[in-house]
This record gives sequence, structure tokens and C-alpha cells, in this order.
Amino acid sequence: MLNKTPEIIIGIDPGYGRCGFGVIIESTIGEYDSLIHGVFTTRKDQLHAKRLSEIAQDFRAIVKQYKPTVLVIEELFFAKSTTTALKVAEVRGVIMMLADELDLRVVEVKPNEVKITITGYGKADKKQVEAMVKTIFKLKAIPKPDDAADALAIAWTGAVKQRFTN
Amino acid sequence: MLNKTPEIIIGIDPGYGRCGFGVIIESTIGEYDSLIHGVFTTRKDQLHAKRLSEIAQDFRAIVKQYKPTVLVIEELFFAKSTTTALKVAEVRGVIMMLADELDLRVVEVKPNEVKITITGYGKADKKQVEAMVKTIFKLKAIPKPDDAADALAIAWTGAVKQRFTN
Repeated sequence: MLNKTPEIIIGIDPGYGRCGFGVIIESTIGEYDSLIHGVFTTRKDQLHAKRLSEIAQDFRAIVKQYKPTVLVIEELFFAKSTTTALKVAEVRGVIMMLADELDLRVVEVKPNEVKITITGYGKADKKQVEAMVKTIFKLKAIPKPDDAADALAIAWTGAVKQRFTN
Repeated sequence: MLNKTPEIIIGIDPGYGRCGFGVIIESTIGEYDSLIHGVFTTRKDQLHAKRLSEIAQDFRAIVKQYKPTVLVIEELFFAKSTTTALKVAEVRGVIMMLADELDLRVVEVKPNEVKITITGYGKADKKQVEAMVKTIFKLKAIPKPDDAADALAIAWTGAVKQRFTN
């Protein structure tokens, strides 16, 4: 039995057209249940600044509803500085800024940390990660779209990581 | 004589440790005066998310005080996707998101548009741009640091650009 408030963690897979999110809650020591997962989407016909503020609004709404105290977010690695890479970084900046404003502690995880924590293998492919997400959270199916599954994987990795770093 | 409220424009030179800003106001048709310019700075000993939210706080404060209706911000071009490039993009995302929330119209300008508009030469160097900023705004000295001068150049370029694109 836990003798403290169960920790609630939000994981974010930063993205521009689709930004994955997954909220998990501590059930028993070392285990977490998925509360909700999905994607924040933005419409292509909107102005860029508007799309960023829609993501901000969606993130604030989820935090208000589920009251996580920790944000886990993936660090970005891009071989090339494409327009896409920079837009994903813009979204990441918005989320991290809001996390600070909303008093969430931030845990950053690297893509290979997610793979190794979830599957035990740093070069695991997307399918292996998603299959393990289904197992870890005892879900009936692999969460769709990929971004939502990735966000759960990120949240869980942060949950594990902070045990070793706090 | 203007028969409307003089337009106020804020220019931003996105940066992480130092983010340049310049606020200009329409004086007569085709001319703008500088109201204020400077840099938002963040401290290296702060957490990343905190540094982003400090920039957000500074930006909101300047907008509240000077009431610009237009944000002009530079597009990012980086040959390599370095950590620095991604951090600057994160700041840019924060500023653009806030611009939407604060009802500022956003005008994006490319680095070479700034150079050609300010100096007439798309490959002008930093010194030439800064000297012209001093002349355009009838300043006693070249604004320091560079980021502040660049933000004024960006604001002015946006002011010119929107005449041709509205």
C-alpha cells in the first residue's frame, strides 16, 4: 500500500501536426496505470502561431483535468535542421514553458533511454516499443496513433528514470 | 498626419541566453521611431523550463506595457541542427504562441529579407545592418547588444513587409 498521494505523470511526444500525450498514475510501487492517452492535433489551414497556441490550450486542459505533477518529455535529435525539426522544437519549447508555469517538474529523456527502458534494447524499433507499452499498461490493444503510444512510453521511462536520479 | 492610431510593432530576435526585442511606433507614413529595445536574458544556473518561462514572462510584460499589435519575428535557418539551434527554436515557439494568445498579428521575416530591407543588400554583414538601424531610427549610438539592434532591424523589416503583403 502507498502511504502518499499516487504520483501522476504526463508524457509528451512533441509534434506539430500531431503531439502525443499520455497520462499515467502510480498504482503500486513500480507500477503505473494509463489514465488517458491521445494526440493534440492542429489544423493545417491555421496560422502557425495559432497552431502553437492550440497545442498550449490542449496541454493546459489536460493538466487541469488530470493534475500531473511531473512532465516527461523527449529530447530532440535530428541529423538535419529541417523545417520539421525546428517546428517540433517550437512545440517542445511551448510545452516546457507551460510545465514551468503550471508547476510541473520536468524530466527529460533521450530517445534511446526510452527504447532501452521499455524493451531492454537501445535499438528497438517502433513496433517493439509499442508492443511493450501494451504489456506494461495491460492495455487491450496497442494505443493508436503511434504518437500516443510513444507518449506513454516516454511517461513510463521518466517514471523509472526519476527513481534513479532523485 | 495620421488619421488612425499609430501602429506599434515588436520585433524579436529569438535567442536563448539573450533574446533581442525592439518596439517601434509609426510616426509619420513610412517612418517609425524606436520606443524601447533591449534583451531578455536568462540565467545559466536555471532549469531549462524555467528559462523559457522567464522569457515568456518578460515578453508578456513588454507587450502589456507597450501594447504592440504586431509581432515581427525572424525565421530560423541553420545549416546544422545543433543543440543551440533547437533551443532557439524552442524560444521562437514560446514567443509565437504568446503572440497568438495576446492577439498580436504575426509577420515572419527571413534573415536575408532583413538585410536587403535595411541595407539594400542581401549579403550585408552585421555591422552594416547595425549602422543602418542607427540611421533609420535616428539613434545616438548603435544599440547594444547586437541582439537588440537586430530586433529593431527585424521590427522595421516587418513594418515594410506588411505594406506589400496586406
